Amino acid sequence: MTFDQTTTATLPIAPAVPSTGRLRPLGLGEVRITGGHWADRQRVNATATLAHIEHWLEREGWLGNFDLAAGGALPAGRRGREFADSEVYKYLEAVAWQLGRDDDPELEARFRRTVARVAAAQEADGYLDTNFGRSGQGARWSDLEWGHELYCAGHLFQAAVARERTRPGSDDGLLGVATRLADLVCDVFGPDGIPSVCGHAEVETALVELGRVTGERRYIEQARLFVERRGTGVLRDIEWGRSYYQDDIPVREADVMRGHAVRANYLASGAADVAAETGDAELSAALRRQWANTVARRTYVTGGQGSHHQDEAFGDDFELPSDRAYSETCAGIASVQFSWRMLLAEGDAAYADLVERTLYNVVATSPSADGTAFYYANTLHRRTPGEAADPDVVSPRAEASLRAPWFEVSCCPPNVARTLASLDAYLATAGHDGSLQLHQYAPARIRTVLGTGQEVALAVATEYPADGRIAVTVENDATEPWTLQLRVPAWAAGATLTVGGETREVAPGYAEVRRAFRAGDVVTLDLPVSPHFVRADPRIDAVRGSLAVERGPVVYALESVDLPAGWEGVDDAVLDAEVAPRDADGRVLVRLAHRVSGDGPWPYATAPAGSAAEPADVALVPYNEWAERGPSTMRIWIPES
Amino acid sequence: MTFDQTTTATLPIAPAVPSTGRLRPLGLGEVRITGGHWADRQRVNATATLAHIEHWLEREGWLGNFDLAAGGALPAGRRGREFADSEVYKYLEAVAWQLGRDDDPELEARFRRTVARVAAAQEADGYLDTNFGRSGQGARWSDLEWGHELYCAGHLFQAAVARERTRPGSDDGLLGVATRLADLVCDVFGPDGIPSVCGHAEVETALVELGRVTGERRYIEQARLFVERRGTGVLRDIEWGRSYYQDDIPVREADVMRGHAVRANYLASGAADVAAETGDAELSAALRRQWANTVARRTYVTGGQGSHHQDEAFGDDFELPSDRAYSETCAGIASVQFSWRMLLAEGDAAYADLVERTLYNVVATSPSADGTAFYYANTLHRRTPGEAADPDVVSPRAEASLRAPWFEVSCCPPNVARTLASLDAYLATAGHDGSLQLHQYAPARIRTVLGTGQEVALAVATEYPADGRIAVTVENDATEPWTLQLRVPAWAAGATLTVGGETREVAPGYAEVRRAFRAGDVVTLDLPVSPHFVRADPRIDAVRGSLAVERGPVVYALESVDLPAGWEGVDDAVLDAEVAPRDADGRVLVRLAHRVSGDGPWPYATAPAGSAAEPADVALVPYNEWAERGPSTMRIWIPES
Repeated sequence: MTFDQTTTATLPIAPAVPSTGRLRPLGLGEVRITGGHWADRQRVNATATLAHIEHWLEREGWLGNFDLAAGGALPAGRRGREFADSEVYKYLEAVAWQLGRDDDPELEARFRRTVARVAAAQEADGYLDTNFGRSGQGARWSDLEWGHELYCAGHLFQAAVARERTRPGSDDGLLGVATRLADLVCDVFGPDGIPSVCGHAEVETALVELGRVTGERRYIEQARLFVERRGTGVLRDIEWGRSYYQDDIPVREADVMRGHAVRANYLASGAADVAAETGDAELSAALRRQWANTVARRTYVTGGQGSHHQDEAFGDDFELPSDRAYSETCAGIASVQFSWRMLLAEGDAAYADLVERTLYNVVATSPSADGTAFYYANTLHRRTPGEAADPDVVSPRAEASLRAPWFEVSCCPPNVARTLASLDAYLATAGHDGSLQLHQYAPARIRTVLGTGQEVALAVATEYPADGRIAVTVENDATEPWTLQLRVPAWAAGATLTVGGETREVAPGYAEVRRAFRAGDVVTLDLPVSPHFVRADPRIDAVRGSLAVERGPVVYALESVDLPAGWEGVDDAVLDAEVAPRDADGRVLVRLAHRVSGDGPWPYATAPAGSAAEPADVALVPYNEWAERGPSTMRIWIPES
Repeated sequence: MTFDQTTTATLPIAPAVPSTGRLRPLGLGEVRITGGHWADRQRVNATATLAHIEHWLEREGWLGNFDLAAGGALPAGRRGREFADSEVYKYLEAVAWQLGRDDDPELEARFRRTVARVAAAQEADGYLDTNFGRSGQGARWSDLEWGHELYCAGHLFQAAVARERTRPGSDDGLLGVATRLADLVCDVFGPDGIPSVCGHAEVETALVELGRVTGERRYIEQARLFVERRGTGVLRDIEWGRSYYQDDIPVREADVMRGHAVRANYLASGAADVAAETGDAELSAALRRQWANTVARRTYVTGGQGSHHQDEAFGDDFELPSDRAYSETCAGIASVQFSWRMLLAEGDAAYADLVERTLYNVVATSPSADGTAFYYANTLHRRTPGEAADPDVVSPRAEASLRAPWFEVSCCPPNVARTLASLDAYLATAGHDGSLQLHQYAPARIRTVLGTGQEVALAVATEYPADGRIAVTVENDATEPWTLQLRVPAWAAGATLTVGGETREVAPGYAEVRRAFRAGDVVTLDLPVSPHFVRADPRIDAVRGSLAVERGPVVYALESVDLPAGWEGVDDAVLDAEVAPRDADGRVLVRLAHRVSGDGPWPYATAPAGSAAEPADVALVPYNEWAERGPSTMRIWIPES
């Protein structure tokens, strides 16, 4: 269904709305990105990435696994890891969102064909997983720690939810497949069932979403049960400890996120959904606390989370090495999902700030410009030039900091695809009191009906983040006053709001205008996006004595291909912190000096080593655009001279 | 056999001497530590650690595996990992060395009983490994990447070599077991055999040593073949790349050590042995280059190596995070073995410097004071207090930076034991030209015959490293002039040498005195061991803006139990670099200030955060003694204010 730009009346594409919370999300029928950075990304996603993913799912046999299952041939010939089914489901979710954005009969047909292959593999009692339950496979639910059965189920549920949110009542059969499996999950894991959880949280948030779109309260109750059980030691202890899968501390008792960063954020998302549906204030408070402590102590300047390669996990507080940053793409996506749920629940701009930072500096960094290669991990410092990945080869080394076409563990490509295809939904919300919030800035059209019944139509014009001006034009006459709230990011000290020729300074948070708007009214927000240095908390040992450069929401990086001739790599550079970073012809320049460090026999001495010379103005690149010009070294944090 | 203090004639306990090289190692019959720090460690090793290890080998069934093998019961009931046999062999090696230091009939009987159990498991053709080759097990040599068969064989050979070096011609049967297996290895992997290597290097150095004590040239040739094959891609590619097991680049072509740090150092040790036996100058040059680059760019201030938890591997150049330091105990031991071989070959004091640094700050750090708990990894910065390990429980978390009694992968405890039991052999060497070198300083007795035929007897008196004075008393009259060389460590600028009442300054390297010594002559070396700050190469990002304190060869650490009341942990401390560290009543004091860092909502700001106050003089602890006073936080590198 295309976005109907002529009517502000009935809104057929509704989001799955939490039953409590301060803000109501808008569906793709209510908000649409119409241009700019994210529209470009969405176009590449639609025209290149989706087909790329389908190609690899076929080529690697992960789609074929469903055909084998339907034909009774498994386990012989099954390919891929235990969670391969989930990549198919994330692909389906991405396609569902894309079809919600733009009609495309050919894509619709491909979607239906894939759904049919999945549906054919479902067993009579609703069970669906190509890796368990058959002769020669592990028994169903026999490996909750590592089997990923419920994780896969959750991604199936989310695909069905995406479809129902964009094509309600579609006859493709996907929702039925999902609910049959969800019913089985509730039977097996209900109050009198297996008293455990999945080693990889994900099904919790999916069950709540499925409950919202179907009205089936039982799914939400099952999600609540899963959230309550986790942290009580229901899973086996492992080398990295139960914290790996958050089974060390009950969710409502934990103070900070820990363990596997994707698992932690999906779990928190599900717990936030449960708290929203049950009005559980204690659980909400725990999540608020965990979010705040994690953001204050365990998050990279990019918004990335997870500093351990070994277990893809959060480290200790302030353990945030740049060169060993893991910052998995999927952890960034999961963090966006958690922050988004907290934003809906609490209405605090800090959540939207982190969503923006993470979208620009993690999610946008993963895919290549052409949408056919991806970072799995997103390092903040590459010391040695990588080699370009072969576009025809599956990378066994997800963590090697190469953009690669596909991975043996290929969670990130379809996760990026579903996020970009649904990005419109993160732009705006409506308050229950007759207000409308803009959280993210892009050229956009918004049409919705506020809680007061007031119809609202807006057009957002901006070149953000290149430029800081965001002009919101009201397109309809209001029958009564309503409130427009525009997010002012925490970094935007000195921002101004102009309404009716009057300009005033607005503080970080939400700048607010309340009136009976008339068609043609313009509200203009000016955010100061000139580049500036940022410093890290001194407890972040890894970047002591170094500065990073931000410009608006975008984190910049020094890449070796931009260095003067004769400099070996970015580790030769020291920063002149007396010279502020500055815009010049669309680039951001900093003053660097060339440090030549001859090797001594032993790198620990009593006197300082090295000297710097040859000052030069060097352009930085937006971090999300790095590594597009051949092998290079790169660093975000640059040592001060 | 006890050290015979009355004769300087025949030396029954001979080391396995390389056929080339500048220095000749001395055996336990020629050099003996008689007191001080290392004698204390050796006493604890002999009286507590050996029995502790035997207890756990029995309890975990790793000794029992041999009984099951002998009884034809395997694979049912086999316990432990694929390399469990090797822990038994390292234990045997440790006991062999200890029996070479001190007669102990009860220990001798235990040694023989254990050898008998191992021997009973050997198959008719010489094969010996409890994990392969039987019905229900993998075929022999079917998993060279991960099976560790040749690795285990190597440790068996080294146990036999230790026995032959301390009890030549013993009738316990161990040497026969070793040579039968070595013969089989040569048959199977010889020039016309399987053209591959073991995924974990170790057998190379062991084969050369076995060749030296038996005179069997074939073993040395087999080691040479293994060294030549590695790096040509004979092993399967894996997620971390073939560099993990050094199969990415031929040994003679590599510039720096990489991949798994224990594997890398054992391989280099074997290659050094091969180069010494074959006079291969190209291979020697490659090893010299690799050692130098690794020490200059990939080694912690403690001498520790390996910065990756994930693959227990070296990182890139200068990638040396303190908080995620892996610095495996076994990598330190393997590095000592490599440096020792380079020292024998080249005679350069830099090798002995690294041996000393690593012994004091890695090997000595692993075991607890009572010798019954061990660090597997040796972090340089602990941010959160650990919990004491249960002395009755196997730790599944070798990498958790707890000293634990035993690990699921328990390579480190017996490796420490064999190193401490053989430590005497690292003190001194003889030059082929009639010189004698002292490389490590401890109260000791030395009796040997120089290459010229000159008998030499020395007594070393010192309280090193607490005190910097080393007094060497000659105990016999020389018939002709000979040269005494005393190592002056690189950190010891301003050292002096006193001979016959004359004192002169001596530079780092070897201070030399040549004369026809008379009984009673004293040569005194004074090393300046006052504490001082060291700085890191600016390319080591992780410790930028921080200082460490060394005193002699000992690296110091700040431990939270020494902080003033009210300081939360070591990360509250900033260092006043204007106040030099100083000795006070046997402790080392530094001037710190208390930094109180309130959390902001986001740790990256435009202005510096935090302020420091409350200066206090705080005692540092030798790093090798930390974590003996309950849970604590710790850091070696302290940020400057």
